[in-house]
Order: sequence, then structure tokens, then C-alpha cells
Amino acid sequence: MKALIYRGPGKVSWDTVPNPVILQPTDVIVKMVATTVCGTDLHILKGDVPEVKLGRILGHEGVGDIVEVGTDVERFSVGDRVILSCVSSCGKCSNCRQGLYSHCLDTEGLAGIGWIFGYMIDGTQAEYVRVPFAENSLYKLPEGVSVAEGILLSDILPTGFEIGVQYGHVSPGDVIAVIGSGPVGLAGVITARLYGPSKIIAIDLDESRLKRALEFGATETVNSTDADWKEQVLALTDGAGVDVAIEAVGLPGTFTMATEIVRPGGSVANIGVHGKAVEFALQDLWIKNIDISMGLVNTNTLGMLLKLVSQHILPIDKFITHEFSFDQMLEAYDVFANASQHDALKVMIS
Amino acid sequence: MKALIYRGPGKVSWDTVPNPVILQPTDVIVKMVATTVCGTDLHILKGDVPEVKLGRILGHEGVGDIVEVGTDVERFSVGDRVILSCVSSCGKCSNCRQGLYSHCLDTEGLAGIGWIFGYMIDGTQAEYVRVPFAENSLYKLPEGVSVAEGILLSDILPTGFEIGVQYGHVSPGDVIAVIGSGPVGLAGVITARLYGPSKIIAIDLDESRLKRALEFGATETVNSTDADWKEQVLALTDGAGVDVAIEAVGLPGTFTMATEIVRPGGSVANIGVHGKAVEFALQDLWIKNIDISMGLVNTNTLGMLLKLVSQHILPIDKFITHEFSFDQMLEAYDVFANASQHDALKVMIS
Repeated sequence: MKALIYRGPGKVSWDTVPNPVILQPTDVIVKMVATTVCGTDLHILKGDVPEVKLGRILGHEGVGDIVEVGTDVERFSVGDRVILSCVSSCGKCSNCRQGLYSHCLDTEGLAGIGWIFGYMIDGTQAEYVRVPFAENSLYKLPEGVSVAEGILLSDILPTGFEIGVQYGHVSPGDVIAVIGSGPVGLAGVITARLYGPSKIIAIDLDESRLKRALEFGATETVNSTDADWKEQVLALTDGAGVDVAIEAVGLPGTFTMATEIVRPGGSVANIGVHGKAVEFALQDLWIKNIDISMGLVNTNTLGMLLKLVSQHILPIDKFITHEFSFDQMLEAYDVFANASQHDALKVMIS
Repeated sequence: MKALIYRGPGKVSWDTVPNPVILQPTDVIVKMVATTVCGTDLHILKGDVPEVKLGRILGHEGVGDIVEVGTDVERFSVGDRVILSCVSSCGKCSNCRQGLYSHCLDTEGLAGIGWIFGYMIDGTQAEYVRVPFAENSLYKLPEGVSVAEGILLSDILPTGFEIGVQYGHVSPGDVIAVIGSGPVGLAGVITARLYGPSKIIAIDLDESRLKRALEFGATETVNSTDADWKEQVLALTDGAGVDVAIEAVGLPGTFTMATEIVRPGGSVANIGVHGKAVEFALQDLWIKNIDISMGLVNTNTLGMLLKLVSQHILPIDKFITHEFSFDQMLEAYDVFANASQHDALKVMIS
């Protein structure tokens, strides 16, 4: 089969490799129908994630058709069209039994991290993929939900919702700031609306991204390159600060921004994948009665979000801006890596 | 009257000053029966809190008798013996109406900080004190609760409970680590027991403080000067890390310790008053599904804790190790500032 192979920092290739085979009785083999590229893949490509071995097939999102099932798999059959959760988890260990799938302790949830596709095991940017713990890691794609919608449910929609909105305790009437209007930030914007906030302030340095944030449900925008960006945010909250600041970038500066605009008693929800330590101003913040959350998505809300998408309560059709075929994989990477230049949000490879 | 006056970094005096008078119709004047010294007073004395003006009367804890009431005060009368909350708050602003008394927005809750005794207004280390917002800031001392118990309810017991135990989401079966076995850390230990944890690990560098922590309800101790202190903590949790790490010191190193021993999915509750920024290892922590809380006590649980103390469900008689008279105020400061040398925990001045 063909697959996207990691060849070291800055290097990938679209190569012929052996097809995956069933290794455990709880595995299935999926023929990929569509996949996409995530900011995390770009981090790996930059060499930020040294655990990824040379020769690894990248990718952790996608929709596909089951072509083979392990002997212990009862709930899925050959021919089922499924969404692959980016986090595969055994469902049985002490962490999984608390819904903490992101820290599955099974030996395939290596080092207690449930996210292993395209990281510790071969991923979804390929014609076929082995899915471990299939019963806990796959969701049938229902009638009426498109493949394009399905791939957004693998990762970005649950990530924005669980790590941004739920960890940030978004509540009715809240003023929410979302720092970063990339795919995950916009997933935070769109899912924050489920809890009836009073305002959603999108903060980004790119005007075209801010314009798009308004289409996704942000009610106000602030350009962070403005010298008075903080005063603009505070003015939208009668000077108090926002109830919830969601960080969806992953840089020290944007994390600090979140801590500066949150009101006393509010929450900072960090979604960003960080590569560096942050200078954390505890001398100012200890007295502020805030909480700061962070983490890897569990995808324990994937089924619920899928239901809302199938009922058209969550309109997510605007995320996919560019489409490619599997043999255009390298082109898809290039467009996603230079998203501003192409005005790209999420790319679909099908 | 006599009072303890702040004369600049490192300098206090026990001087004669004018008696306080009612300034607002919601004020009362209290004749102090007993007060104490807090770690925060030592921070002020070190010059860490430059907002405190020369000539300020220090102290924010105590029990006293009401000797005069403002015209709007209905629930209290002359002669009532009361506990003074360290946080005085109007009870009417938008923050107070959420129970966020620590950020009272009234003009006497200057800068949105409810803690003003011995900070923005004159405090309790005096023969008399003016108490603003009396109806929201005082609690009658019930029969059967001693004055010594009362002064612990002004600050340290609610601080350990609200900012350590409640913000840390302590739940039945949890393994709790409390870093620092000073008065506030031990208040965290004793009130954590209300939620039925499975283990409470006291961590400190002083063996005599660790021994005392066991008397307060810690089930295990770890000396943080041991090279393998972290391995000792992890061994007590089957390698997983603690469910809740409570930081009750206020140094960069102890904050970092808390983030290193918390399990994926757990909570860090920072109680410590910090004077410096902390290098925060987001490159390791972003994936850990933890939350980190911090803040100033609201004392919104003071009434509930008072009930438990009056019913002897919270045995807090071991906190007071040294007693002084008011004219020994400077000696009390000296003993508290050199607590290790005197094996002191909390001092009572009465």
C-alpha cells in the first residue's frame, strides 16, 4: 500500500510499504476513505516530538471502511464505515474506566498516552491502518453524516470541546475569549455555543482568520497585533476580564495572554501543544482565584458530538477548505503547513 | 489604645495610637480579645507587600467583643463576641453575590481584593479595630467554641479548606499530598479528612513538623530533603502520582514539586503566597490532563467550618502552641518568625 512516511525532521515521503495486519484479537484493519493533516503532524515534522521513529506512518484522524476484524471484535463487522478516534484506548484500565482515555495504561497505550496513531504506532495517512482496541476506539459513521464531517470528529472537534470548553467550565452567560483561530480554536468557538455564552471573543493576529471566526460563531474579534489588544478585550467585559480564556496556539506568549485577560474567579483552558516552558507570573496570579487546565483529548464526547452533527445542531461544514486525493498527500501537507498563504483551514485527503 | 504598627521593612513597634471610630453605617468597633500572627504578616514585614503604608496597624485574624455598632447594623449588638473573617466584603457587589468575597468590588474592597485588614486598612493586632461590612464579615462565636479555636477560623482553616481541599477537588478515596506542614498546610490536612481520602502524604523538610503532621491526620510523611523524595511519593501511589497535590509554602521549587507528583487527570491546588514567577514546564504538562488552581480565601465556608468545630468533628486544639499577652506582641512575632527554633505552630495573643 501507499503511506506517508516520516523520514526525519523536515522529511516525509509517499511510499509503498507492507499492508498492516491484525496483531491482537481486539484489532481491526480499516481501508482509509479520508484523512487529514493536524498541527501536531507539523510539530512532528519539525522534529519537536523526538519519540516518533524514522519510518513511522503519520496521521491520527480519519474515516474508513473495516476490511478485517480480530476474533474478539463483536460490535463491528467487515464493511462498516467508521470514524477513527485519534485516541485509541483499551477501555479497561483504571484510567480508561474514569474516561481518561488519553492516558490509557495498556501496553499499546505506551507510556500511559492513549494517542499513539502516527506517534507510537503507524497512523492514518495511508491506504490501510491497523486500529487497536477497535471496540473502544471506533464510531460508526451514521447515515446523513458526511465523510468530511467524520474526519473532524476524530480529533479537532472533541479537542476544542473537551480541553477548551469543558475543562474551561464554560457556562451560560459567560464571556469567552478564544486565542487562536485555527481549526482547534474554531472548534472551541463552535462548541462553546452549546453552553449559551453571552460573548465569544476571537483573538488572532490574522484578519482573514478573525473574519472566518465570525462565521463560526464568534461575536467579537480582537487583533492581537494591536498595541491595545488587552484593553479592547477588557472593554468587552466592563473591565472585569473574561470568564474563560481558551488558549489554542501553544506558545509561551499566548499562554501568558490568557492569564492576563481572565477575570478573578475565571478559568484558563490551555489546548495548545507546547514545546517550551513558560514564565508563569504566580506572584500576580496566586491571589486571583483562577484555575488553569490542560490536557490531551479523551474523545469521550465523540459520540455525543456526532449526534449533534447528525442533527445539524453543530454546523461544521465550513472547516474543510481544500480537498486532495491520496496521491496528492505531499501537496496537502504543503498547503496546510502554509495555511495563511492559501487561506486554508482544514484539508481533506480522500 | 495600643497597636502593632508597621514602620517599614523589618520594623514594627507596639505603640499608642488613636482608637478607631465608625466611618460607615455598616461598620462596628470590636475590642479584640485575641489575635494571632500569620505568615502573610511576615511577608509584609519583609517588605514583600509594598502596598502596605507606613503607620498601618497589622493583623487580619482574631476574636473580639463588639463595643459599638453603625446605624445600619441589625444582626449584631454591643456585647456580641465575634470571629473576624480575614476577608471583609460588602456582600452586595457582583463578585460577592457569587461568593467571591476575596474580590469584593466595593470601594473598601480596594482594587477588588477583599482582604484589607492589616493591608489597606488598619488590622487586628490592636486593642480595638473598625470592621467594615460587619454583617457580611463577622460570625458570632457560639457557646462551646473557645477563643483559641475562633482565631483559627479567621483565616487558616478556611484557607486550607477552600483553596487547598475544595479547589483541589479532594474526593473520597483520593491520595492527597500536602507540601508544607505549617499552619495552613496542616489546615489542609485536617480538612481534607472531611472528604474521606485514602492517604494524606505530608511533605516537608523538617522532621519535627512531619511528626506533627501525623498528629493532625497525615497518614504518611516524606522528607523533601531526601534525594529520592519523589520516588517515595510515587511508591505510595503505585507509581501513578497523587490525585491532589496541595502546595502550602509559596516558593517556585515547591510549586514545581506539586506539578511533578500529580497523576494524569489530577489537580494541583496552590495555596502559597508567591513573590516570584515560576518556570512552568508546559512542554511536559500540556498533555497531562491536570488543573492548577490558586487564590485568596473567600471565607464563604467559615460558618460551616465553625459548625464542625463546635461539634468537635474538626479537632483543632493542637494548632496553638504558644500564648502571649497583648503587651508581649513583639515577642509573639519573634517566636512565630523563628517557628522552627521554638517548635511553634500558631501563636495566640490575648
